[in-house]
Amino acid sequence: MLRENFKNGDMNMKISIIGAGSVRFTQQLIGDIAQTEELSKEDTYVYLMDINRRRLDNSYILAKKYVEELNSPVNIVKVEDMNEAIDHADFVINTAYPYDSRYHEDGFQKWETVTEIGEKHGYYRGIDSQELNMVSTYTYILASYFDVKLALDIASKIKEMAPNAYLMQTANPVFEITQAVTRWMNVKIVGFCHGVAGVYEVFRRLGLDTEEVDWQVAGVNHGIWLNRFRYKGGDAYPLLDKWIEENADKWESKNPWDIQMSPAAIDMYKFYGMLPIGDTVRNGTWKYHYNLETKKKWFGKFGGIDNEIERPRFHEQLRRIRERLIKLAEEVQKNPRIMLTERAPDIFKKGRLSGEQHIPFINAIVNNKKTRLFLNVENKGAIKDFPDDIVMELPVWVDKDGLHRENIEPDLTERIKKFYLWPRILKMEWNLEAFISRDRRVLEEILIRDPRTKSYEQVVGVLSEILSLPFNEEIRKHYRI
Amino acid sequence: MLRENFKNGDMNMKISIIGAGSVRFTQQLIGDIAQTEELSKEDTYVYLMDINRRRLDNSYILAKKYVEELNSPVNIVKVEDMNEAIDHADFVINTAYPYDSRYHEDGFQKWETVTEIGEKHGYYRGIDSQELNMVSTYTYILASYFDVKLALDIASKIKEMAPNAYLMQTANPVFEITQAVTRWMNVKIVGFCHGVAGVYEVFRRLGLDTEEVDWQVAGVNHGIWLNRFRYKGGDAYPLLDKWIEENADKWESKNPWDIQMSPAAIDMYKFYGMLPIGDTVRNGTWKYHYNLETKKKWFGKFGGIDNEIERPRFHEQLRRIRERLIKLAEEVQKNPRIMLTERAPDIFKKGRLSGEQHIPFINAIVNNKKTRLFLNVENKGAIKDFPDDIVMELPVWVDKDGLHRENIEPDLTERIKKFYLWPRILKMEWNLEAFISRDRRVLEEILIRDPRTKSYEQVVGVLSEILSLPFNEEIRKHYRI
Repeated sequence: MLRENFKNGDMNMKISIIGAGSVRFTQQLIGDIAQTEELSKEDTYVYLMDINRRRLDNSYILAKKYVEELNSPVNIVKVEDMNEAIDHADFVINTAYPYDSRYHEDGFQKWETVTEIGEKHGYYRGIDSQELNMVSTYTYILASYFDVKLALDIASKIKEMAPNAYLMQTANPVFEITQAVTRWMNVKIVGFCHGVAGVYEVFRRLGLDTEEVDWQVAGVNHGIWLNRFRYKGGDAYPLLDKWIEENADKWESKNPWDIQMSPAAIDMYKFYGMLPIGDTVRNGTWKYHYNLETKKKWFGKFGGIDNEIERPRFHEQLRRIRERLIKLAEEVQKNPRIMLTERAPDIFKKGRLSGEQHIPFINAIVNNKKTRLFLNVENKGAIKDFPDDIVMELPVWVDKDGLHRENIEPDLTERIKKFYLWPRILKMEWNLEAFISRDRRVLEEILIRDPRTKSYEQVVGVLSEILSLPFNEEIRKHYRI
Repeated sequence: MLRENFKNGDMNMKISIIGAGSVRFTQQLIGDIAQTEELSKEDTYVYLMDINRRRLDNSYILAKKYVEELNSPVNIVKVEDMNEAIDHADFVINTAYPYDSRYHEDGFQKWETVTEIGEKHGYYRGIDSQELNMVSTYTYILASYFDVKLALDIASKIKEMAPNAYLMQTANPVFEITQAVTRWMNVKIVGFCHGVAGVYEVFRRLGLDTEEVDWQVAGVNHGIWLNRFRYKGGDAYPLLDKWIEENADKWESKNPWDIQMSPAAIDMYKFYGMLPIGDTVRNGTWKYHYNLETKKKWFGKFGGIDNEIERPRFHEQLRRIRERLIKLAEEVQKNPRIMLTERAPDIFKKGRLSGEQHIPFINAIVNNKKTRLFLNVENKGAIKDFPDDIVMELPVWVDKDGLHRENIEPDLTERIKKFYLWPRILKMEWNLEAFISRDRRVLEEILIRDPRTKSYEQVVGVLSEILSLPFNEEIRKHYRI
């Protein structure tokens, strides 16, 4: 079912979701599309694509039912072939985390295996947990090989079959992938993340009326900072200082993800001069991460999400949600009168949007519904002192003419630039150099500079064991030098 | 004896050496001046300045005798007051390593004490031995406090009393100091180093006729790379590759400094794509430096100079030379017929120059004797992808109109830029931020990112013990935040 079939036909808009077997995220996008007036039309087609047929089927069944419940005429199509999904698409959303189903039930399982080997060799939380980049559900050190490669493959198909489409990169590592595609492929790519929503937790804790806050954040993906923070016309940072003085010691983490106002965040704020937002708080130096005890000191009683207790627990939780959704899909097939929006209103939202930026982005581009988003795009002068062609996370206005970067005002502090952004950008560069050079010594070099490394033998040992894993055969071949 | 006294008088040229108690280096400069036709004149005045009167006296006695033996009419003046040295100077050469004589006999003693404390806290070779910066006879982590401060003081006096003078920075850390003065003071500063001479060892080992080599090196101080290497019109790197294949395994280190063709240099060449030159070979990652055994593997049987055996031995050697020069000065006073150029021809050279770049620089500026030097000056576009205002070590032609940067051709490799120069530049930036902010947390942050650090407590512990040393009282007060 290629789009040619619809030429002069009824398809006006084709949105494709690669990795649509990620059932939950897919349903969020479906809900947003179905509840966006300008997009919820009978000539809008949403293509769900996944190589895992069972997961794809589940996602498809639920999506069909969900749009029906929302009385949306949007068409849902499922395909296992990526070409079909990409051909003549207007927007391609990549949310896929590749894994090999011969070896693993999901990507988390793969990650857990690799992490375990890392820990055996002296790398607490695995070699992929990296200074300024502890968000590590992807195989970072190994140049996120499968993730980068998949994105480049998608970009290459887009170039051929849908050259005007936007590639909306959602799967991590967003920074590395968005940079790789921008640098090596002639394709429009934009990186998406919802970490910026951390600002609302700040406003809530400080008791601020969101409508009255003039704010801006900027940096790189998972490394963003509240550079502008004004309330009712005045500087709002003194309000934060007051909260710290009066309330910081009473703060308690409500769940492993609740770290926006943690001692780590405050400590980073005091050093860098601006508040880190969202996942940035997870991505400090090892100071906050040496071990579980250290993590609890800095992130509250759970020690954040990136530790040996909470991370596996979270994976189990996601697996339970997946099972629940599989069951729900089975039930829906047996009994079409089941209402998803009633049975699982946390996932199948009605009357409200998910908060993800994807559909507002599409609506802005297509229907000129101008909106302010925080996107990963080339810097092009927005943040001073960084090259134009580095992908940075920036406040951007989007409309039918495309992306319009806001001026970053006030500028980020020198400490953020020199102690955080530049070192993080270099790690991105090292990662891409590993991938493109296919040179194993680059992987070694990254680990040699890792504070957990005590000898060169340790580096060779851990890499060799990870690259020997059966499911890493392709990476092993890739690193031929 | 301020220069005003000489106005309309006989002083045409005033060269001042700050830290002239460094007897050996001072005599090299004296020999170069006295043997440079255009400068060896009766209206040339060389001011020797040091706060250590005994050392200054020795240097003065020897310098006077040396110029006499060379039949040079150059005037030697000794002063203990820095103002007198700087007032109306044309060139100020800073070679001083400050130490407090109440506590130490020389700067090495201070360094050894600090290194020992570092090792006690788990920092092999001390906290000042840093990745990409193992040349560590200066207290690097502590922002080279005394060295940077002295250079800023000198620059400030130059601004006031000799605004057209060149400050010729020779004492380490050349990179940090040259950058600090360039950034914070409105004074002409140029950083000097002789590490570039390592290329001649390469040519010698490869059996090349130096005259036939077209070469260029560039980078930052103690981090320079042979970017251009052509021989008799063709690429000379294949000659190096051939040497590696046929001779590298037969290479032996003749002394602790002889590491230009060591396995470490070759390993760096293979990874970075260009040969590291001079001190750059000492300044790799910890891969080459974990312990003495590792160092011996990479630098030959001595393990290079930066280790617990050779470094103290070298300091002893320098102390013996100092003693010998003191004795020689005493002898000269008793018996003026002693010939220094015969008694110690290694130091008091006759018929040849020292190889230091200082006097050729002065002669080029003053007498338009155009010459090619390798100097630490603002980049100003010479090396692509680095800001104009970063001080880099560059090939420069010098004449009466000043400095003319060569085009760096071919460009340095991406790996040199991203894995070496940028990380090294960031360390410089961290160092200057520590100094200027007076914030102890910056010192902590530098150590948190050190591969030898295992806990935050370790960082606090080592800094606290070093800052508690009686001779570090001023640094302790400086870091008030």
